[in-house]
Amino acid sequence: MRRAVELAARGRGTTSPNPVVGCVVLDASGRIAGEGFHAYAGGPHAEVAALREAGERARGGTAYVTLEPCDHTGRTGPCSAALLRAGIARVVVAVRDPNPAAAGGADRLRAEGVAVETGVLAEEAERGNAEWLTSVRLGRPHVTWKYAATLDGRSAAADGTSQWITSPEARADVHRLRAEADAIIAGVGTVLADDPRLTARPPGGPGGPGPGPGGAGPGTARGPLRVVVDSDARTPPSARVLDGRAPTLVAVAPDADAAELEKRAEVVRLPRRPYGLDLRDLLAELHRRQIVGVLLEGGPVLAGSFLREGLIDRVVGYLAPALLGEGAAALGPAGVATIAGTRRLEFEDITPVGPDLRLTARPVPVKEQ
Amino acid sequence: MRRAVELAARGRGTTSPNPVVGCVVLDASGRIAGEGFHAYAGGPHAEVAALREAGERARGGTAYVTLEPCDHTGRTGPCSAALLRAGIARVVVAVRDPNPAAAGGADRLRAEGVAVETGVLAEEAERGNAEWLTSVRLGRPHVTWKYAATLDGRSAAADGTSQWITSPEARADVHRLRAEADAIIAGVGTVLADDPRLTARPPGGPGGPGPGPGGAGPGTARGPLRVVVDSDARTPPSARVLDGRAPTLVAVAPDADAAELEKRAEVVRLPRRPYGLDLRDLLAELHRRQIVGVLLEGGPVLAGSFLREGLIDRVVGYLAPALLGEGAAALGPAGVATIAGTRRLEFEDITPVGPDLRLTARPVPVKEQ
Ligand SMILES: NC(=O)c1ccc[n+]([C@@H]2O[C@H](COP(=O)([O-])OP(=O)(O)OC[C@H]3O[C@@H](n4cnc5c(N)ncnc54)[C@H](OP(=O)(O)O)[C@@H]3O)[C@@H](O)[C@H]2O)c1
Ligand SMILES: NC(=O)c1ccc[n+]([C@@H]2O[C@H](COP(=O)([O-])OP(=O)(O)OC[C@H]3O[C@@H](n4cnc5c(N)ncnc54)[C@H](OP(=O)(O)O)[C@@H]3O)[C@@H](O)[C@H]2O)c1
Repeated sequence: MRRAVELAARGRGTTSPNPVVGCVVLDASGRIAGEGFHAYAGGPHAEVAALREAGERARGGTAYVTLEPCDHTGRTGPCSAALLRAGIARVVVAVRDPNPAAAGGADRLRAEGVAVETGVLAEEAERGNAEWLTSVRLGRPHVTWKYAATLDGRSAAADGTSQWITSPEARADVHRLRAEADAIIAGVGTVLADDPRLTARPPGGPGGPGPGPGGAGPGTARGPLRVVVDSDARTPPSARVLDGRAPTLVAVAPDADAAELEKRAEVVRLPRRPYGLDLRDLLAELHRRQIVGVLLEGGPVLAGSFLREGLIDRVVGYLAPALLGEGAAALGPAGVATIAGTRRLEFEDITPVGPDLRLTARPVPVKEQ
Repeated sequence: MRRAVELAARGRGTTSPNPVVGCVVLDASGRIAGEGFHAYAGGPHAEVAALREAGERARGGTAYVTLEPCDHTGRTGPCSAALLRAGIARVVVAVRDPNPAAAGGADRLRAEGVAVETGVLAEEAERGNAEWLTSVRLGRPHVTWKYAATLDGRSAAADGTSQWITSPEARADVHRLRAEADAIIAGVGTVLADDPRLTARPPGGPGGPGPGPGGAGPGTARGPLRVVVDSDARTPPSARVLDGRAPTLVAVAPDADAAELEKRAEVVRLPRRPYGLDLRDLLAELHRRQIVGVLLEGGPVLAGSFLREGLIDRVVGYLAPALLGEGAAALGPAGVATIAGTRRLEFEDITPVGPDLRLTARPVPVKEQ
């Protein structure tokens, strides 16, 4: 199953709006006969790929699959039927499919006399599929907030300079994060201050069509959707985020004068809330567009609002071994005034990236979702 | 040598003002014959302890020692002579002794025909002896700044509450840091806000004499010196730091009215600088008192001043997986206004402590000290 989870991860960034899935098929004597993963939406499912590789050796064998095999006919046939046809005797599943339209594969297999086990290495498999599972369970995209800061939690110096807090290695790692996302969100404050491109290509790289970095497949060839949250349509027409290199959506208030913006990007109107534009509505809009995983790139004010609304599912912080003592904090007000009210998370991964440290944390689950 | 460095570390917290030293003696055939470390000032040196254990097996053997053997007669005889007497044929040294009064052991041994190698595993050994080496090389104590913060770099919530940002495990770890220090420094701001005890004992633990936690020996039985930086003698007479459970030094300005304080603590007068009391003078005063390693416990304003003056040798941050978005930053102004001016460090160690993360970093050496 660990191998199946590894295989699944190969699909990261290219399967959206589908889940990542990995599958390992063992023959009747327990030897690996086939491996597969779901590589892009519309492409063969992991089970089908693994069964194809296994051929006749699958008969009487076992299939390890990270997500419950589907039982519906979408762009590809149901995997439950493919497993039955191949004569698989036992299926081991990590995570049950929460999607009512596709679930039922386990029951169907059982009804046909296949031994089915579920919940094996579920936590790892959940993690690998966090975006898709959040999307199906909560009906909104999974939000990863990314920030870069010094040890003392500053994202910009007192004079406003914020570039190069972290190393080239960390910045390359951010491009990998971006390539895995379906959309990248920034506030107009960041657009005005830094004029970022918000593309998944390294700065200065080619802007034309073609697969993105990190082996991105057809799903992301055009790059993730760029989203700017901008109540009063203050994004300047010359902003890089409007350069046409990737699709851009600008969220504005109902009363904003967005005539200029509408020539260069898609504009969506969202209601104003006391803290800014309605972020739940924003995510609902993205969900409708089959956006499954978004990367929130800041700035601090917008990230504070997402946190306040309970809309951050994962935090990825790049910590530079440096001290500033002054300058903007990485996170703005989120409605937490006391230590007791702190938003608690738990570390999921700590990895050095060049001289910096990448911290990945998730909110402590309040209740089992 | 790795074993010798490990042995040396056992002396941490009890050898001050002496260095920590570890020694492993191999017999002529390369088998371990004796091990020793320097346990407390006035006690046997590591070499002597290891030679004692090795006895006659030391003859023709090799001694691995983390610091160049001393060549002077302090409270104990010169180690160079002890090694010669024992018939050691080869001495491998990690770090040369920068102390002119004690150095020369390597030359003396060479002159007597012993093979001497230096610089083996020097970096690890340097690290283990950072406090003492800083004290000898720079003529001031080594300063470790400790802070506790959320992922977004806040040390207190907006309402001023700062207790329990980190876990009980992290707080226990801080007590270990305190027990290893010769002095603990805090600013009057922290004393007024939190009324800390600044002792190395867990809160609520016994306050009387007796060895401290972590196997502290005679050197720290009375606990590290508590130091408050307090220009105008604002520390209230009822402050816990004046409770008599450990010696306390309060640094005040020449014109401060410290009559009340003088009844409860030792008071030292330091000149005022634009940023507060002169911190180099403070460290010089502590150096005179044979203080080798100090733990700077904050708060942010005082830590900013130490950083500005280039007086932080090591940073130990306890990072809680939590987000606040408001509240005091972990570090106050340090005279850095641009990203280019950032104080650069490098991570030396990353260790999970309960649910939190302990980050240890050191300033990137500008020149070889
Ligand atoms: N190091 C890093 O990781 C990093 C990343 C990004 C940015 N930064 C730095 O952060 C700074 C800019 O950040 P910022 O915090 O000022 O701006 P921001 O978070 O990028 O944008 C905030 C703006 O977004 C608009 N907005 C609309 N709806 C909102 C809502 N629901 N919640 C919050 N904001 C909403 C508001 O402006 P309107 O009212 O006009 O809509 C608000 O002022 C720059 O210095 C940049 O360099 C650092
Ligand atoms: N989480 C943590 O790790 C941690 C640790 C400690 C404190 N804290 C929090 O930090 C807050 C208090 O910190 P703070 O920054 O206000 O106070 P502080 O740093 O403890 O003390 C600052 C004061 O020290 C005096 N001082 C004298 N010489 C100085 C110099 N050279 N440089 C700087 N200060 C000098 C000044 O007052 P005078 O002019 O009167 O001398 C100054 O206001 C509290 O909320 C506390 O809970 C958190």
